[in-house]
Amino acid sequence: MKKISILGSTGSIGTQTLDVVSTHRDQFQVEGLAAGTNAELLIRQVHEFKPKKVSIATKELAEQIKPHLPSTTQVFYGDAGLVEVAAGTDAEMVVTAVMGSVGLQSTLAAIEAGKHIGLANKETLVTAGHLVTSLALEKGVNLFPIDSEHSAIFQCMNGERRSDVAGITITASGGSFRDLSREQLKDVTVEDALKHPNWSMGSKITIDSATMVNKGLEVIEAHWLFNLPYDQINVILHPESIVHSFVEFCDSSIIAQLGNPDMRVPIQYALTYPERWTSPTRSLSLSEVGNLHFKEMDYVRFPCLRLAFECGRMGGTATTAFNAANEIAVARFLQREISFLHIEEIIEKVLEQHNNISIPDLGSIEECDRRSRDLALRI
Amino acid sequence: MKKISILGSTGSIGTQTLDVVSTHRDQFQVEGLAAGTNAELLIRQVHEFKPKKVSIATKELAEQIKPHLPSTTQVFYGDAGLVEVAAGTDAEMVVTAVMGSVGLQSTLAAIEAGKHIGLANKETLVTAGHLVTSLALEKGVNLFPIDSEHSAIFQCMNGERRSDVAGITITASGGSFRDLSREQLKDVTVEDALKHPNWSMGSKITIDSATMVNKGLEVIEAHWLFNLPYDQINVILHPESIVHSFVEFCDSSIIAQLGNPDMRVPIQYALTYPERWTSPTRSLSLSEVGNLHFKEMDYVRFPCLRLAFECGRMGGTATTAFNAANEIAVARFLQREISFLHIEEIIEKVLEQHNNISIPDLGSIEECDRRSRDLALRI
Repeated sequence: MKKISILGSTGSIGTQTLDVVSTHRDQFQVEGLAAGTNAELLIRQVHEFKPKKVSIATKELAEQIKPHLPSTTQVFYGDAGLVEVAAGTDAEMVVTAVMGSVGLQSTLAAIEAGKHIGLANKETLVTAGHLVTSLALEKGVNLFPIDSEHSAIFQCMNGERRSDVAGITITASGGSFRDLSREQLKDVTVEDALKHPNWSMGSKITIDSATMVNKGLEVIEAHWLFNLPYDQINVILHPESIVHSFVEFCDSSIIAQLGNPDMRVPIQYALTYPERWTSPTRSLSLSEVGNLHFKEMDYVRFPCLRLAFECGRMGGTATTAFNAANEIAVARFLQREISFLHIEEIIEKVLEQHNNISIPDLGSIEECDRRSRDLALRI
Repeated sequence: MKKISILGSTGSIGTQTLDVVSTHRDQFQVEGLAAGTNAELLIRQVHEFKPKKVSIATKELAEQIKPHLPSTTQVFYGDAGLVEVAAGTDAEMVVTAVMGSVGLQSTLAAIEAGKHIGLANKETLVTAGHLVTSLALEKGVNLFPIDSEHSAIFQCMNGERRSDVAGITITASGGSFRDLSREQLKDVTVEDALKHPNWSMGSKITIDSATMVNKGLEVIEAHWLFNLPYDQINVILHPESIVHSFVEFCDSSIIAQLGNPDMRVPIQYALTYPERWTSPTRSLSLSEVGNLHFKEMDYVRFPCLRLAFECGRMGGTATTAFNAANEIAVARFLQREISFLHIEEIIEKVLEQHNNISIPDLGSIEECDRRSRDLALRI
């Protein structure tokens, strides 16, 4: 019986994590669930999975859900509630699937409490990779990637010596607008952007996929997860999203992980590693797919990825500024305040005004995050 | 310093094994070399790699090469000589790259002497898989596959639990005639058949590739190497030979091994496992390749593969008969005695007349081999 807690249980990754739990019901005990504002779904999840502790975004929402929960369920709220679910239960593993940079504090609290991390919140490593990885090392805690790309790389490194790795290649579908030129991007709408060709994901990550910011965050995350210099991290366009990523070794052998796009596979792998358990996911038939395409990444078409590499190489708070600027820009785009191409413009301008701090502490990261957001709101 | 012997040192795999040794000269000591009839090349290899023992096909050839070798080199010949090089040196590993069923006796001798095997001779497992694998288990000897397909599967299973394997898929280029219909196969020549689109190999294996017998032998070999039932072994057409084979696990994840077609990579992996060493092989660029194709295997177009599965499932001496009939048929085709389509006819007819022995000893295998060859010569 594996005891887990889930931060962000009502989101896309959270609900799919609970799908995995449902498939292997006798193998998991859900100790804690933390949600944002989806009170109704959280109530249903509590009745189904019977966690001891739950948390929701605000005090009001907490008061609102209490009458609908079993009296034995402890209810928390806000940032403190998130930390309570992350660190204050008997869970061996915490799945961190909250969106954006709010995941950092709770992830650090979970690591501090000695819990292994199923990492779905990219921003944790993007904004504080040096703090998170060194604390995990100190506490003997594993960071299991839940992203399909990082899970693929993690799987491809199974049984291999890290010193034999020549490089990794992250595949990118190209997102909703992969067939459009930069000229055509001028007029795209929020609705167009939310139609991802391969993956069913949340709206923020679907936009990030179209701007290639998502791939940029993945590159930075991979740098920290696998302790690889940026020169050993490549990105390739692969529209089918069947090859989820691959590793090249020093003998020129490439090991790749493939499958139908289904987040439940990497989620389950993080929960069951080093074992693999059966999955209801549809098996991949390569003869049915017939054809896999690969194309060199175009850094002119996708300037946000170039910026991400630049920030990653710069290190320090540069990646925090990149991420913060993007979060605000995407939110503004989703609110129809700005155009799609304006997203990259905002990121670029925030970075132009960014003063980098090389080895920032949490305070400096938070300050950089706040400043970058403020600036991004005003551009 | 790893001590190795090579059986079949002047053949395609043998010379490429010595290429690998040359690349890492200070890491290997060649203890023994056994060749067929290429005296000139063997003499050059002895001067370059300084083995203590060498063997050549006949007494006459042995007498012929002796004056050209250092006086410290012990020279043997024939089957006994092959066994001497296989089992009578300080080698930790023996690469068995002789062609056809003559490899069996020497491979068993090497295993009996506790030497790990770099297995390039498919027929060893095809004709006596039950004897070879049980002796290897008893002697604590590893059978490292050298075939690119089996090496791929072996690499994909790295760090995984065997019980998590759902199945393996061996890729097949389709060989020289993959674009021809069965009607068009009637008139093909030996010269046409020897033009393999992807791999540079010996002539026997190139013909076996065109008939798909090679894939059949690989299926049977995989059954023994990985201890998998035939229902868990699949074959798929993949004309580019870039994905060398793959493994599907119970969670629906597929792990594949990819690379440019170059036998030195699987050879080196067998010699260096579990480590990987640098290789002069050209790195694979998937964006350069651009496109990978996969097609379901056509068992009507390639009846020899269907026969191989049937023989494999039947077990016993059936696979010996299959292999023996094919060896004779291919030899007759190469001597321009029979047509290309006659190869499968001979195999089919030999199998029709075969009386299967379920768990044969070496004597029964040899008798079946002899009988099937006799018969194949007369059809």
